[in-house]
Amino acid sequence: MATVPAQKLLMMFAESRKTTMDLVHNLQPDDFAVQTARYASPPKWHIGHVSWLYEVALSKTDPSYKPHEEGHDWYLNSYYNRFGSPRDKGERGSVSRPSTTQMLKYYAWTSEKVVKFLESAALGPEESALFDMCVHHEAQHQELMVYDLQHMLADKYEPSVRGTAPRARRTGPETASIAGGLYKMGHPGGGFCYDIELPEHMVYMKEYELARYPVTNEQYARFVEEGGYSDYRYWLSDGWDRVREHGWEAPMYWEKIEGEWHTRTLAGVRRLEPEEPVVHVSYYEADAYCKWAGKRLPTEAEWEKAAAGGGEQKRHYPWGRDAPDPAYCNLLESRLWRPSAVGSYPEGASWCGCEQMMGDVWEWTCSEFSGYPGFKSGFDEYNDKWFTGQKVLRGGSFGTPSVSIRNSYRNFFRLDERWLFAGFRCAEPL
Amino acid sequence: MATVPAQKLLMMFAESRKTTMDLVHNLQPDDFAVQTARYASPPKWHIGHVSWLYEVALSKTDPSYKPHEEGHDWYLNSYYNRFGSPRDKGERGSVSRPSTTQMLKYYAWTSEKVVKFLESAALGPEESALFDMCVHHEAQHQELMVYDLQHMLADKYEPSVRGTAPRARRTGPETASIAGGLYKMGHPGGGFCYDIELPEHMVYMKEYELARYPVTNEQYARFVEEGGYSDYRYWLSDGWDRVREHGWEAPMYWEKIEGEWHTRTLAGVRRLEPEEPVVHVSYYEADAYCKWAGKRLPTEAEWEKAAAGGGEQKRHYPWGRDAPDPAYCNLLESRLWRPSAVGSYPEGASWCGCEQMMGDVWEWTCSEFSGYPGFKSGFDEYNDKWFTGQKVLRGGSFGTPSVSIRNSYRNFFRLDERWLFAGFRCAEPL
Amino acid sequence: MATVPAQKLLMMFAESRKTTMDLVHNLQPDDFAVQTARYASPPKWHIGHVSWLYEVALSKTDPSYKPHEEGHDWYLNSYYNRFGSPRDKGERGSVSRPSTTQMLKYYAWTSEKVVKFLESAALGPEESALFDMCVHHEAQHQELMVYDLQHMLADKYEPSVRGTAPRARRTGPETASIAGGLYKMGHPGGGFCYDIELPEHMVYMKEYELARYPVTNEQYARFVEEGGYSDYRYWLSDGWDRVREHGWEAPMYWEKIEGEWHTRTLAGVRRLEPEEPVVHVSYYEADAYCKWAGKRLPTEAEWEKAAAGGGEQKRHYPWGRDAPDPAYCNLLESRLWRPSAVGSYPEGASWCGCEQMMGDVWEWTCSEFSGYPGFKSGFDEYNDKWFTGQKVLRGGSFGTPSVSIRNSYRNFFRLDERWLFAGFRCAEPL
Amino acid sequence: MATVPAQKLLMMFAESRKTTMDLVHNLQPDDFAVQTARYASPPKWHIGHVSWLYEVALSKTDPSYKPHEEGHDWYLNSYYNRFGSPRDKGERGSVSRPSTTQMLKYYAWTSEKVVKFLESAALGPEESALFDMCVHHEAQHQELMVYDLQHMLADKYEPSVRGTAPRARRTGPETASIAGGLYKMGHPGGGFCYDIELPEHMVYMKEYELARYPVTNEQYARFVEEGGYSDYRYWLSDGWDRVREHGWEAPMYWEKIEGEWHTRTLAGVRRLEPEEPVVHVSYYEADAYCKWAGKRLPTEAEWEKAAAGGGEQKRHYPWGRDAPDPAYCNLLESRLWRPSAVGSYPEGASWCGCEQMMGDVWEWTCSEFSGYPGFKSGFDEYNDKWFTGQKVLRGGSFGTPSVSIRNSYRNFFRLDERWLFAGFRCAEPL
Repeated sequence: MATVPAQKLLMMFAESRKTTMDLVHNLQPDDFAVQTARYASPPKWHIGHVSWLYEVALSKTDPSYKPHEEGHDWYLNSYYNRFGSPRDKGERGSVSRPSTTQMLKYYAWTSEKVVKFLESAALGPEESALFDMCVHHEAQHQELMVYDLQHMLADKYEPSVRGTAPRARRTGPETASIAGGLYKMGHPGGGFCYDIELPEHMVYMKEYELARYPVTNEQYARFVEEGGYSDYRYWLSDGWDRVREHGWEAPMYWEKIEGEWHTRTLAGVRRLEPEEPVVHVSYYEADAYCKWAGKRLPTEAEWEKAAAGGGEQKRHYPWGRDAPDPAYCNLLESRLWRPSAVGSYPEGASWCGCEQMMGDVWEWTCSEFSGYPGFKSGFDEYNDKWFTGQKVLRGGSFGTPSVSIRNSYRNFFRLDERWLFAGFRCAEPL
Repeated sequence: MATVPAQKLLMMFAESRKTTMDLVHNLQPDDFAVQTARYASPPKWHIGHVSWLYEVALSKTDPSYKPHEEGHDWYLNSYYNRFGSPRDKGERGSVSRPSTTQMLKYYAWTSEKVVKFLESAALGPEESALFDMCVHHEAQHQELMVYDLQHMLADKYEPSVRGTAPRARRTGPETASIAGGLYKMGHPGGGFCYDIELPEHMVYMKEYELARYPVTNEQYARFVEEGGYSDYRYWLSDGWDRVREHGWEAPMYWEKIEGEWHTRTLAGVRRLEPEEPVVHVSYYEADAYCKWAGKRLPTEAEWEKAAAGGGEQKRHYPWGRDAPDPAYCNLLESRLWRPSAVGSYPEGASWCGCEQMMGDVWEWTCSEFSGYPGFKSGFDEYNDKWFTGQKVLRGGSFGTPSVSIRNSYRNFFRLDERWLFAGFRCAEPL
Repeated sequence: MATVPAQKLLMMFAESRKTTMDLVHNLQPDDFAVQTARYASPPKWHIGHVSWLYEVALSKTDPSYKPHEEGHDWYLNSYYNRFGSPRDKGERGSVSRPSTTQMLKYYAWTSEKVVKFLESAALGPEESALFDMCVHHEAQHQELMVYDLQHMLADKYEPSVRGTAPRARRTGPETASIAGGLYKMGHPGGGFCYDIELPEHMVYMKEYELARYPVTNEQYARFVEEGGYSDYRYWLSDGWDRVREHGWEAPMYWEKIEGEWHTRTLAGVRRLEPEEPVVHVSYYEADAYCKWAGKRLPTEAEWEKAAAGGGEQKRHYPWGRDAPDPAYCNLLESRLWRPSAVGSYPEGASWCGCEQMMGDVWEWTCSEFSGYPGFKSGFDEYNDKWFTGQKVLRGGSFGTPSVSIRNSYRNFFRLDERWLFAGFRCAEPL
Repeated sequence: MATVPAQKLLMMFAESRKTTMDLVHNLQPDDFAVQTARYASPPKWHIGHVSWLYEVALSKTDPSYKPHEEGHDWYLNSYYNRFGSPRDKGERGSVSRPSTTQMLKYYAWTSEKVVKFLESAALGPEESALFDMCVHHEAQHQELMVYDLQHMLADKYEPSVRGTAPRARRTGPETASIAGGLYKMGHPGGGFCYDIELPEHMVYMKEYELARYPVTNEQYARFVEEGGYSDYRYWLSDGWDRVREHGWEAPMYWEKIEGEWHTRTLAGVRRLEPEEPVVHVSYYEADAYCKWAGKRLPTEAEWEKAAAGGGEQKRHYPWGRDAPDPAYCNLLESRLWRPSAVGSYPEGASWCGCEQMMGDVWEWTCSEFSGYPGFKSGFDEYNDKWFTGQKVLRGGSFGTPSVSIRNSYRNFFRLDERWLFAGFRCAEPL
């Protein structure tokens, strides 16, 4: 991992902190404290938690560091056993103190400490990597906070409209044919990445076909309408159990109003846009759709090769351009609050013609999340303790900070989670 | 039930509303929205719920009534099936909107409507009874809110000290001997009461002895120290299951700090006062203590006769005087934030010499909560749907509004609940 | 409690043991080992458990007693903490060894030991009481075993028809009017009773009316057909929760086949007999029916006075005669496998005209099971540890050994249990 | 898949049926009906279920087939939604009828039907494949039945000693170094295999080292003794949750008796043999051991290449010889009731020197169970509905019928299951 100069770190840090504040500045007081589901967290917790990780970093690197006098470890430790017994995640919303005000002050306090340290210190590569990681960690929580806010406010929040969604211009064949053979997978170096994106390694694949677009709402609605959710034949056994346990009948947030499908989004309830990628489906639903359609989900390697196999690690955003460098798009200003219709950005297609692979919706792959061959853990208890029971998603969503968008980025979630912005595209063997 | 004149209703209403606001006026914003346990509710919910019941009353009585435009039924309906499917109680803390601000506005809006109606209308007995009941309902929630705030803030809240706790002056025998025979039980008329306090009816009792004081912390601590919580012989089967399920080792809020018992109260953590009545014990713990001590809990009738059998329905408060009439003590101003040491108010003893029967700690009785012979339901779904699985408590606590304190008042809770201010006194047969 | 002469004890013991064996002698091998629900037990467990209690009695009384070499305590201890940590009741069916054969041998072994001891010893009153109690304990398990066998085999078991059910001859008014005043309740002495039937004590009652017959299938079916199970207004809050949790739509074992109600019984599936008492209803269902019908359940005292208030403790059986003395009806030979139609035995009416109060169906009362005033525990951990969370049933069912049938007998079950033979009759205040 | 001649099928069928009966012929009646855990099944159910699948096969192939008159589908359908709603697996032990006798008769009835059909019919390749699969299905259940019987009887069963366990002769290096590159994985054709072993396909691997022996009890005990089960750092997050939830402190069946580790096996309780492979560990425990030892689990491909990469699909059994062809070892006669000490069969080492890869203990790999590239489902709802939430095990155990032992066989279980005969060996990258 390349060392990031202090100057760049400071700029990234400033942008990142500003984004977090921008995300919450319209909230009402109650919104900060409330947890709406076990998988969600109150915004004040996110604000405190991303700050707390900087305290952890400072405690490792700054000889003059003194812990914050209020001692919020007990509340802000997400899951690290090495910082004491972590609280049950489901109890984050039952805490009124530390208050939102305290968390916002703590946020400012850590910012000041970090800036002072970065400005003063001659950063070695290890320190640099640590703070770089913290910035990326905050970006991850920004995205989670967007999911959580949608869950809390989907039927109440009305942000000002952001941009205009480009219209679909789908042309050409539905799938790209990709040759088999050896492919070098993983992060090629030069810039930040997590330990789990390393090392680069060879994988052998057969030739395959991959859909050029994510599955759309219209396509998915057909599966729903034709009884997909009541026919066990399409479902994995675990998936079928969930369908019945939770009474799933359609993707999360879908609602039928007067005979037409609507969906609750960050821009309120709106009619389902047929050409937008389907979103808020679990792995099980993605897999069931594929079986219904006579296809399958791609492996992680197949997805990555289709995105990056042309030789460059380009980042293609839904709005059709690369990210500026030093890249830090403002999640709030430059994004639509929705995915873009398929075919919106043909100029951003990958080397093999696949569109919207990045920054639109996370795409489920059929690969279990685990370490690459030769994996070395970079941070204790950070990523590798999750190497079972989750599937890899690739690509990034319209809610993902650009700093988290790259071809090699491996996101991962439990197979039944639906509150993230996840869709999928189908593969089929030749 | 006697008709309450509009003028008196208005005064009671005003006092009651003021008390609710006084209870929350020191809270921080997050405190309003948070629910700390399934049995607790967020303060903003209490504020909204007591207001919502006035809307229900207005909708029945005021021909010009128009519902509040925001329609909070879905959130504020506690358990009434007739107002739609009630939300799961455990989910009251996962709602950020309606916000605290909305609930406070709603509170003011209903106040205005009620005052306007009471001032304008010629109240019939039925209307009068309905609004009278609403005032008493708000008093009940004031007390619940005190429990909930203690649960939320016991280790953080530091109210200014309120009064000085009088010292113990225990004299005379430990028990009072009470003759057997027929006793007329229930509310004698004249003033508000709930339907469950009626009708007056005869019960036959054998002679009995009743402790003149509630069991103290010192007495209860001996039970704890002598292994009471690890010896099944003292426990009801259901109680023993709970002890092991929850790992109970002492009353709720008790903590051993450096070898000494402390307790978390509304005045912060303090050393256990040996002479104060034990509080925060479940029915099962009260029963187990009695068995250990070779005694038993009194029946509801035995308790009431000891309190009121002298012929007058006096209200004896821990501070040793009757309530002023038109009585509305301010819960916040006139109370200590704790029970008083036993023996503090000999002048307030009952006809048979029992002290502190009222307004100090709720006292568990061994009687299941159910209707008196000849019971007629006064309000649909209000009290009688709870006629199983709960035990009656009598007397009122230091956190009880004086309007809820009378000899015939029947409080009731599940047998394992401990966050209320409940203790007990022992009985034994002659 | 009167001392039972050894000779009589021996006879009772022999009859009781024979009855247990008669109950199981038609079973197939698998039937002995299987547990069909958490509340049921495998027959081999019942056989072992009733034997084990004799071992407990011998160990207290017989100086020459040596425990059975196989040591079955771990399996046969039902709930006594003083004999070690009792196994989870729900796990009785997951044990293959001790085998059925071992349990039958153990049964014979204990029989031999008991007979030898009773024959040889000069029994004092304490020893006599202990073995007397063991005989009654076995009778209780005989009835439980009948419930369990019905649950296991209701759709498979076809016993030879036993007797003919007499036809209904209902005449006279529906209810009896019973004067109020003091009534002496409890067991009057002379013959075996449990500690919970003592002491005799006075209770005061208002005048009341009691139905002369239990509620019939026809009456109850009307409640079902008119939507009783889907209207919250009739239900206790706890009861309504159970209705929805378990999806109750009718009494246990009821099934609609081609538009007509059928029921699964010990005689296989048969059409619902309109004139038979309803059976297999929980307390909640009994209470809901009463509310729907504008009535209420009687208290335990009201039930007993109606049965025994005429001055004699008569036992009126459904077949219209008293039990022979020394009474031991053979459960298998002298009974129908069903309750008798209401009105079948006018000659067995109680002093106030109430029919079929004994030996037909257990009748729910609204009284919580707890100790009478002055209660003294007779056996550790036997009855008094159950003094919460259960309701009293009175009367005995067609599956009850006659030794367990007397006016003062207090049966008790959880409010949601339905696999016993329980119905009810309605009361209403004058 | 090669067509199996009817003559060979008949012989395989006969051997297989005999093995099932041999497995149960020493059981006592109760043993057949009891289910000791949710993951286990009563032996009578296994006997019925393997027979029922033949009925399914007959119904597809035999025009004269008439279903068994008793209709046991409701009981014997394990998980196939297409044969109706499958019963909850945990309820298999609550059924007393069909009885063991019925299941044994049903077993004989299906045997007769199958033999008659196989003798009479000119089997096409599809029919042949179907019955071949049924034979292998019965072999799978034979092994499961061994697990279940151990769970039921580990502290009670004392089979006659079977053979003598050879002693360890471990020589040479601890690990084998295996070159990287492309490897052709999967079943090469010629003989029965399941659909999930197909198609053969290329995988690319880096060079790696693999332990020549499974981890032994002695090695694993060191992990236990050094606090492995109480140090979160070694554990996957899901695994650590299970350790605490279930209170795991050592492998299943391990017990410390007077300071020494013992284990409950099919031969009763015996002292832990230090040189035997550890067995009865979950995936999580295998993974934690590896992390503690600074190693990792092999992938499925790494395991298979080490076993079969020499070019032949040899079956090396722990007793050092190939299986006879047409192979059907009798599980009961030719096996020890335990794994063999490591190093017992150097003559059976794989091409790269790895020993005991087959037929000793199942070995956990880190590969999630899913379809190979190009997978085509061979039987509806048989294997592919399980493609999530399980890990692949390879090799076969001492309890595995030889017909189920081959290099390409993919066994799969949930990550927390421990009652199977599973151990592991470590890999490490060069």
